[in-house]
Amino acid sequence: MTTATASAPAKSAVIHAASGRIFNYSAGPGVLPDEVIRQAQEELWNCRGSGIGIMEHSHRAKTYDAILAEAIADCRKIGSIPSDYHVLFMTGGATSQNFLVPANILGQTETADYLTTGYWAERSFEHAQMYGNIHEAWDGRPHNHTFIPSDAEIKWSGKAVYAHICSNNTIYGTQWRNSDGSVRLPKVPNNAALVCDMCSDIFSRPFNVRDFGIVYAGAQKNVGIAGVSLVIVRDELLQREPRELPLMLQYRVMAKDESRHNTPPVFPIYMSGLVFKWILKQGGLAALHKTNVEKAKLVYDVLDSSKFYQGHARPDSRSLMNITFRTPSEELDAKFIVEAFQHGMDQLKGHRVTGGMRASLYNAMPRAGAEALASFMREFERRNG
Amino acid sequence: MTTATASAPAKSAVIHAASGRIFNYSAGPGVLPDEVIRQAQEELWNCRGSGIGIMEHSHRAKTYDAILAEAIADCRKIGSIPSDYHVLFMTGGATSQNFLVPANILGQTETADYLTTGYWAERSFEHAQMYGNIHEAWDGRPHNHTFIPSDAEIKWSGKAVYAHICSNNTIYGTQWRNSDGSVRLPKVPNNAALVCDMCSDIFSRPFNVRDFGIVYAGAQKNVGIAGVSLVIVRDELLQREPRELPLMLQYRVMAKDESRHNTPPVFPIYMSGLVFKWILKQGGLAALHKTNVEKAKLVYDVLDSSKFYQGHARPDSRSLMNITFRTPSEELDAKFIVEAFQHGMDQLKGHRVTGGMRASLYNAMPRAGAEALASFMREFERRNG
Repeated sequence: MTTATASAPAKSAVIHAASGRIFNYSAGPGVLPDEVIRQAQEELWNCRGSGIGIMEHSHRAKTYDAILAEAIADCRKIGSIPSDYHVLFMTGGATSQNFLVPANILGQTETADYLTTGYWAERSFEHAQMYGNIHEAWDGRPHNHTFIPSDAEIKWSGKAVYAHICSNNTIYGTQWRNSDGSVRLPKVPNNAALVCDMCSDIFSRPFNVRDFGIVYAGAQKNVGIAGVSLVIVRDELLQREPRELPLMLQYRVMAKDESRHNTPPVFPIYMSGLVFKWILKQGGLAALHKTNVEKAKLVYDVLDSSKFYQGHARPDSRSLMNITFRTPSEELDAKFIVEAFQHGMDQLKGHRVTGGMRASLYNAMPRAGAEALASFMREFERRNG
Repeated sequence: MTTATASAPAKSAVIHAASGRIFNYSAGPGVLPDEVIRQAQEELWNCRGSGIGIMEHSHRAKTYDAILAEAIADCRKIGSIPSDYHVLFMTGGATSQNFLVPANILGQTETADYLTTGYWAERSFEHAQMYGNIHEAWDGRPHNHTFIPSDAEIKWSGKAVYAHICSNNTIYGTQWRNSDGSVRLPKVPNNAALVCDMCSDIFSRPFNVRDFGIVYAGAQKNVGIAGVSLVIVRDELLQREPRELPLMLQYRVMAKDESRHNTPPVFPIYMSGLVFKWILKQGGLAALHKTNVEKAKLVYDVLDSSKFYQGHARPDSRSLMNITFRTPSEELDAKFIVEAFQHGMDQLKGHRVTGGMRASLYNAMPRAGAEALASFMREFERRNG
C-alpha cells in the first residue's frame, strides 16, 4: 500500500477484504466495472478461444476484425448514432483533439467560438489559436469557473464555423445540465456545428448526436482506458479540407481506413468494446443516468445539509460526475483525505488548481462507493465540525 | 477457434493443451512472454497492493510515478542509453513518427536522405515530403527489396541534416546486419544524424545508441503492446525548432513533461515496463541476441537445405526477426498455412505485398516455437515436395 497515497500510512488502508479492491474516486484514468476487468484478465491469455491473448493479436486478423466491428456497432447502439456520422478510435488523447478539430475543419481566415468553462476548455481555446480566428464567447475565469453560462451571458461572434464547449468540467466539477441532470446545450447561432469535449461525461446520460458536429472523449473515464479516444464526427465535416495535413492527423483518413490506417491501440479499443457491452447490459444511457443522478445526490445532499463542507460549483451547474468540495481549512482537507483512505476510499484529493477534494462518480463507481463516501463525510463532520 | 484464421476449419487447431495457447508468429502485434501476461492479469485487478487495477490508476498518482520511473530506468539500462538522450513514450505509432521526425528536426529548405529498403521505409520517405527536400539515397523497389545496400550502392546527397533507415524490414524480411547478425549501419557522411525506425528489431540485439540521433519503435513487436511508441532522442536535436507545431507534436514538450504532457497510455507503458524487466531477467540484449540467432538458424537451415522452399531475402540480408519464404505454388502456400494452423502454429501468412509465408520470431517467441516450425516445414516438404 506504500505507493497509493504519499501521505497515508502504509498499513492502515482498508482494502475491501472480499475483493482486494478499494473505492477509487480518481478523476481519470478512473474505475472500471469489476466484471469488465475479470473478462479482460481471461482474454489477456486467450482471447475468444484463439489461443492468442488480446494484446498479441494482429490488428489485421479475424479476431480483431470482430472486436472492432462489435465495438463500433455497440457504440452506435448506445448513442443511437446516425449513419451519417463516423465513429473513430484515435490516439493522442483529447488534448490532441484540441488541435485536430481546428486543423481539420477551420480555415485560417475563418472563425470559431469557444466557451471556456473550465481548465480543459481553456486549453482547447489555447491550442486552437494556430488555426484561425478563435473568439472567446464566454470566459469563466473571472468567476473561478463555478458555473455554466446562461444563453444570455454568451457573446457569440455571429460568424463561427463551429462552437466549442466542454460538457463536463472535470476539475471544477461543473456540467452543462438542466435541473434533472439532462443535457443542456447553448443555442449556437447560424446552425454552426457544435463541437463538444465530452471526456468526463460521455455515455453517462442520454444525448442527441444530431445536436453535434463532433463529439470527442478520451476513453479513460466512462468508456475504457487511457490510450484511445472516441471521436464521433458528422460526415459532412469530413469534406472540409482547410489545409494540408499529415495522413495520421486527418479525420478523413481515419474514417476511410476505419481507424486502422496504421496499427491501432488494439487493447485499449478492446477495453472500450467491453465497456460498451457492459453499458448495454446495464440498460443503456437512460438507466445509467438514473443511477448517476442518485449516486451524486447522496453526496450533494451532504453538502446541502452541512455548514462544514463547501461545494465549488453553483448548484445549478453541479456535475453528476465530479463532485468538488472543501472543508473549512486546508489542514482538515488533508486530514479528510488521509482518513478517507484509511476507511477504504482513495484518490479523493482535488486537482492542484482547485485544491480541496474531488470525488468522481463515473458509471463504474458502484452505488456503495457513493454511500460510503457520504457516510464518511457525515462522520468526519461530526468529529471535526 | 472460428475467428483465428478464416480458411482453417474451426475444430482442428491444436491449442497446446497445457497452456491453452498456440504458437503465434504474428508480425505485430506479436507474442508476449507468458510470465509478463500472468503478471498483467494479476495487476489488472490490484496493482502493487494499491487495491486499484493498473488500468484505473491516475497518471499523476504515486503508483504510476513508480511504474513510469522504473520503465524509463530499465529501458536506459537495457540499451545503455547515455544521459544526453531522452527516452519518450508517445502515441500514434511509428507511422506518426514518419512525419514527427521531419516536422521536429528538418527545416523546409533543408535536406534529409532516406534509404527505402522496404514497405515501411517507403512510407517514411513519402510522409516526410511535406517538410523539406527528401533525397532518396537508396531505392530498393527495383530489387523487390530483397537485400540491404552496401555502402558503395548508396548515393548520399552530401548535404543531409539526417539520414533515415529502417533497421529491419518486417514485410520483406531483411535486416541491416553483419554475418553474425550484429548491427551494421551505413556510413553517413558529414556526421549527419542517423534516424532509425527500429520497430521490429529494437532490443532484439545490442546496439550503440550513440550511433543514432533518433531511434523510434512501436512497442507491439519486441517491447510491449500496440498503443505506445518508444522514442530515444539525442538532446541536441531537441534544440532544433524548424517550425511552429502543436504542443502534442513537439518532442521538446514530451521531453520536458516526461511523456506526461497529457494523460499517457498508462497500460501500454506499464506493459513496456514489464517487458523491460523480463529482458533484464533474460540477461539483456547480448543474451537475447544469442537466442534469436539460434532460433532464426533453425528455420533458415530448412530453407538452405531445401529445393522446395524459397526465401525472399538475399542470405546476407536475412532478418533474424521475420523470416519470409514460399513454397513452389500459391496453392501449396495456402495449404501450408492451413496445416500449420492445425498443428498449433498461427499467423504464418505473409503480408499481401509479398505473399507466401512469414514467421516472426521476436524475443518472446520461445525456442520451441522455432523448433516446431522447422520440424513442420521439413515434414510438409516431405509430403508435398
